[in-house]
Amino acid sequence: MELLINQEYFIKAIADVSRAVTSSKNGMSGIKVAACKDSITLTGSNSEMAIEKVIPQAMAESKLFEIYQSGSVILPTKYLYEIVKKMPGDLIMKVHEDFTVTITSGEIRSRLNGWDSGDYPNLPAIENARSFTVPSLELIKLIKHTVFAVSRNQFKPVLTGVYLSVKPNSLFFAATDSYRLAVSKLEIQCDEEGSFVVSSESMNEAARLMSQASGETAIYFTDQYIVFKKDSITLYSRLIEGVFPDINGILQIPSKTQIIIDKKKFLNGVERACLFAREGKNNNVNLFIRSDSSIRIYSDLTEIGGIEETLKTVSIEGETDFGISVDGIYIVEALKAIREETVSIKFGGVLRPVLIEPLHNDSHRHLVSPVRTR
Amino acid sequence: MELLINQEYFIKAIADVSRAVTSSKNGMSGIKVAACKDSITLTGSNSEMAIEKVIPQAMAESKLFEIYQSGSVILPTKYLYEIVKKMPGDLIMKVHEDFTVTITSGEIRSRLNGWDSGDYPNLPAIENARSFTVPSLELIKLIKHTVFAVSRNQFKPVLTGVYLSVKPNSLFFAATDSYRLAVSKLEIQCDEEGSFVVSSESMNEAARLMSQASGETAIYFTDQYIVFKKDSITLYSRLIEGVFPDINGILQIPSKTQIIIDKKKFLNGVERACLFAREGKNNNVNLFIRSDSSIRIYSDLTEIGGIEETLKTVSIEGETDFGISVDGIYIVEALKAIREETVSIKFGGVLRPVLIEPLHNDSHRHLVSPVRTR
Repeated sequence: MELLINQEYFIKAIADVSRAVTSSKNGMSGIKVAACKDSITLTGSNSEMAIEKVIPQAMAESKLFEIYQSGSVILPTKYLYEIVKKMPGDLIMKVHEDFTVTITSGEIRSRLNGWDSGDYPNLPAIENARSFTVPSLELIKLIKHTVFAVSRNQFKPVLTGVYLSVKPNSLFFAATDSYRLAVSKLEIQCDEEGSFVVSSESMNEAARLMSQASGETAIYFTDQYIVFKKDSITLYSRLIEGVFPDINGILQIPSKTQIIIDKKKFLNGVERACLFAREGKNNNVNLFIRSDSSIRIYSDLTEIGGIEETLKTVSIEGETDFGISVDGIYIVEALKAIREETVSIKFGGVLRPVLIEPLHNDSHRHLVSPVRTR
Repeated sequence: MELLINQEYFIKAIADVSRAVTSSKNGMSGIKVAACKDSITLTGSNSEMAIEKVIPQAMAESKLFEIYQSGSVILPTKYLYEIVKKMPGDLIMKVHEDFTVTITSGEIRSRLNGWDSGDYPNLPAIENARSFTVPSLELIKLIKHTVFAVSRNQFKPVLTGVYLSVKPNSLFFAATDSYRLAVSKLEIQCDEEGSFVVSSESMNEAARLMSQASGETAIYFTDQYIVFKKDSITLYSRLIEGVFPDINGILQIPSKTQIIIDKKKFLNGVERACLFAREGKNNNVNLFIRSDSSIRIYSDLTEIGGIEETLKTVSIEGETDFGISVDGIYIVEALKAIREETVSIKFGGVLRPVLIEPLHNDSHRHLVSPVRTR
């Protein structure tokens, strides 16, 4: 393999695929660089995820590379990144017979020891896989509405992932750690049907990689993999095995009280109360729904101090004059996932979960279980 | 104590003094807040350093506080900071008899448990201490030229500090970890004489606190303390005990070869060579001074790869055709401390330290010892 490549574009592509490379202490995990007649492909992978980036031959009418001889090689990620980052201008990269690679730029000449690319793990073929497409910006919203709610506990692996369910003309995302649940749905044009659990790392990576432009993201799926492909970048993620809990029943809770409230004011109040809510494992924040259409938010750490405030709501309908304790951080994260200015909060009773959703928009919803107070 | 205070200014003052508060796991280290007739003073301290901030009564003709009742209290730093940060507008702060403090803003009411300020450590009196003044921007330069070169090894405490020496009309800073030395000097108007060793943490803090405006910084000194005072902020630092090594002799090295070179190009070259220089404890970067007025920079990590480049110099005078190995990181840090575009590098022989200084400016200089090659 021998080629000339634009440094700026090369370092960007290395940075993109290196996100999938698990960093080992000696920095020896590799990126595969492959050049064929008219494209250069970079691949980074770990046991769960792979990212593939195809560098286009030209961009905005300026040529990005020239291939003198096709071929491929695996190079140590950290060193490849650092060298290319620190070398100016166009780079000439040449692979020698012993997989040593020289990278030169003017008077600067570096050498990196590489490996035979035949050793690189194969990626699943997606040409014949089932697929559908989603507007990239909508996909990112679905991810951001849900991914924060996954479980951090490896005890039940299926809860560490985001649940995706596709049905004709609809796409549904959910995540839960069994104390809270976030769901989001979208109407799409599609005939496929299937459901998958995808790691939060892959979902976050997909949101990051797909965010760079508008347009559509194609989603392919096989028995073991889900694949997100947008323009020149492809993310392969191994599915998490296991049965995701049935959440349909949970969402059908009777509402005894409904509050309409300004999201930002409520968020600020709960965030303040979180300051004195760090006793034990939970972040106990207390809410008291008053009959005068206001809500009292308070917390107390006996040894340190406490905080309380009374917040006017837009409206309160149904039962009032009751208190409920919730994990304040869960409420804060749910409210932060909502972009709308006004939210609806429904209470089914002091021992029932609280349902938070944007006003007049039930396409994404957040359920938070109460905590038992002392 | 009871007062009304502008939230924005209060949080800034808390942030400033909290830099001197060693964070304990439970966040219980305290800030002292004292209000007398026409000023509010905040103090944060640890065993080595204290920062005192006086909040002025007004700024740009708008009043910053009103004191209803004077007094003082100690409050837990982390909680005070977080509460004040999250409370909007003007705050009313009231200390009760049991040192409980209430902070209120409109409908928001918080309580913090405080302590008797009588327990707070006394700061040294500086009214009658000897002193001199330095333009703040020049003081910051002296610090930045030297502080990076202190020893990270606690084995010889005196080397973990910056050496300050004041003589009539001159101020001199030095720092060394015994493998490299950075010195910087400044002409000032002063009649004092003395020398001190000040911790790098205090020096960095002084540079940060004094950077907010131009003008002069007053430096006071006593047997145990050095004090930096600028406008409303005062930094007290306990001196490090011990005798700083005599460095005058070291700086008088014979120069066999002098190179004049573009700083940025040389810095970039050495930084690149550092990539392959991480064998063992040192960052071995090799320089070879060539008779054609160029310098070859190279490094090699057998298992990983290597890099080399040849850089044109502005001029080379004296002996050529010899090589020397240096710790690349030391060279990089010395070059980064120099603002000038062109540097002079003097070699006294392959076993002698390398002297780096800005061209035509010997007010700050850097000595770096060679490393023995394999």
